[in-house]
Amino acid sequence: MKIALIGFGNVGRALARLLSRKRAEFPFTIAGIHTLRHGTAVGEGVTPVLEGKTGGTTHPTSIEEFLDAARADIAVELTTLDPSTGEPAISHIRAAFARGAPVFNIWRHAMPGVKVLGFTGALNSTSKVVIETMERGGSFADGLSAARAMGITEADGAFDVEGWDSAAKTAALANVLLGARTTPQRVSTRGIGNLTPERVAEIARNGKTVRLVSRGRRTASGVSLRVRAEVLDRCDPLASLPGTSNIILFHTDLMGTFGTVSIEPTVEQTAYGVFSDLVDLPRR
Amino acid sequence: MKIALIGFGNVGRALARLLSRKRAEFPFTIAGIHTLRHGTAVGEGVTPVLEGKTGGTTHPTSIEEFLDAARADIAVELTTLDPSTGEPAISHIRAAFARGAPVFNIWRHAMPGVKVLGFTGALNSTSKVVIETMERGGSFADGLSAARAMGITEADGAFDVEGWDSAAKTAALANVLLGARTTPQRVSTRGIGNLTPERVAEIARNGKTVRLVSRGRRTASGVSLRVRAEVLDRCDPLASLPGTSNIILFHTDLMGTFGTVSIEPTVEQTAYGVFSDLVDLPRR
Repeated sequence: MKIALIGFGNVGRALARLLSRKRAEFPFTIAGIHTLRHGTAVGEGVTPVLEGKTGGTTHPTSIEEFLDAARADIAVELTTLDPSTGEPAISHIRAAFARGAPVFNIWRHAMPGVKVLGFTGALNSTSKVVIETMERGGSFADGLSAARAMGITEADGAFDVEGWDSAAKTAALANVLLGARTTPQRVSTRGIGNLTPERVAEIARNGKTVRLVSRGRRTASGVSLRVRAEVLDRCDPLASLPGTSNIILFHTDLMGTFGTVSIEPTVEQTAYGVFSDLVDLPRR
Repeated sequence: MKIALIGFGNVGRALARLLSRKRAEFPFTIAGIHTLRHGTAVGEGVTPVLEGKTGGTTHPTSIEEFLDAARADIAVELTTLDPSTGEPAISHIRAAFARGAPVFNIWRHAMPGVKVLGFTGALNSTSKVVIETMERGGSFADGLSAARAMGITEADGAFDVEGWDSAAKTAALANVLLGARTTPQRVSTRGIGNLTPERVAEIARNGKTVRLVSRGRRTASGVSLRVRAEVLDRCDPLASLPGTSNIILFHTDLMGTFGTVSIEPTVEQTAYGVFSDLVDLPRR
């Protein structure tokens, strides 16, 4: 199967490495790579060109020209998303659908016959680093600096601490798991912007801590989705996982509450999520 | 697809309820039920007979006679296992294979292309209840009584606190995930039998606790499998989940460390595990 790769940042590069490593077992080839800032290349063996390892040439082109030239079976969209507009992913996906290429870039969860009734997750690492920094006596700004130094947040960190990263993940989970048709803007969201070192210390003296928690559940009228700073026991599974680890608990009809944890995930795991979608394609 | 159900205890009954509930979506029927102590019934609609809800008749028979009469597509083995002999399940499964019926009664985990390098789990609830009872000032025997009252352990509890329940689960995980061909007897196992309330209290004063932990990993020469009482931070995810919840962390090549948690699972979840195997059959 030939893949048209749209976006070639950290995840795209990790996916290219993974596909190369698993080629004997899973015969996917990259038929072309389209980037916003580093040009576009089409034809098998393009990966080294864009990684600057060979003398091959690339040239900028539109998404439509790229897809027409790549003639791939599948388009994989991995560009950086503007969460308020959904761009440029929406335009890329529209162009791919117009050419009949399936597009997969979202983690899917399927358990036959199980209905997910709701979910609870602590999905934002930057806010956790900020809170842990304040627990150790640092300031809010110190925490943001620490998160930046770890490479887990953008320049000003507002997207994370104001809850929008969590809201985007909450909306995506709700769309996939609860059949919602929603957007991050429609998630009731409050961040940790008002949290002070004094308040964090007071909470810690009671053996508790704070986490930015995403909650979604089905209701009679649709779905209820919210992101809030919640006071949790220090040993609560939503609070106690190390470093950048994350946890999501799923509340279901047949399976009770079960969950998944990812311990200090890296870009390799994100790439694997895309890879497993690709492998799953022939089964659908 | 017609199912021959061997064993009709708590899990078998929960599975029958689940199949009935999901019949419109997943057209499985129970063609017969074989029990060790409550007779055998063959023919569609047998479930109410064995539940004593109708006046139908049942009669004891051998496993071979039962399988010949049921003429099912699939046999599901859910009897209580003697972990030292593997019986009666082994005889049941041999009889089913001799008749060409596939047999599925183990949870399977599959992620395409991922190699599991090892796993770590806290899989035994009885030992946890005993430890928590001692942390609250009770005796070892008090803890066993509490576990019995919760319905999570057998008469004397030795199977749990001496580590054999954990060893059986460790061997099963190793066989499925690590390609081991092993038995519980070959897992290096030490239980919590020597743990005293005094020692537990001393550990608790340092902010720590004890859990019976199963560990498996691939080695150059095969697999290394062990069950040990380990001292853990009170907030360690292996220690902090509530009640009878369990957690397994998988160490992998492509996915780093990820895990699954099951919050206070009941027999309904066990039945769902069998159900999902059944649903998965046509895809194989």
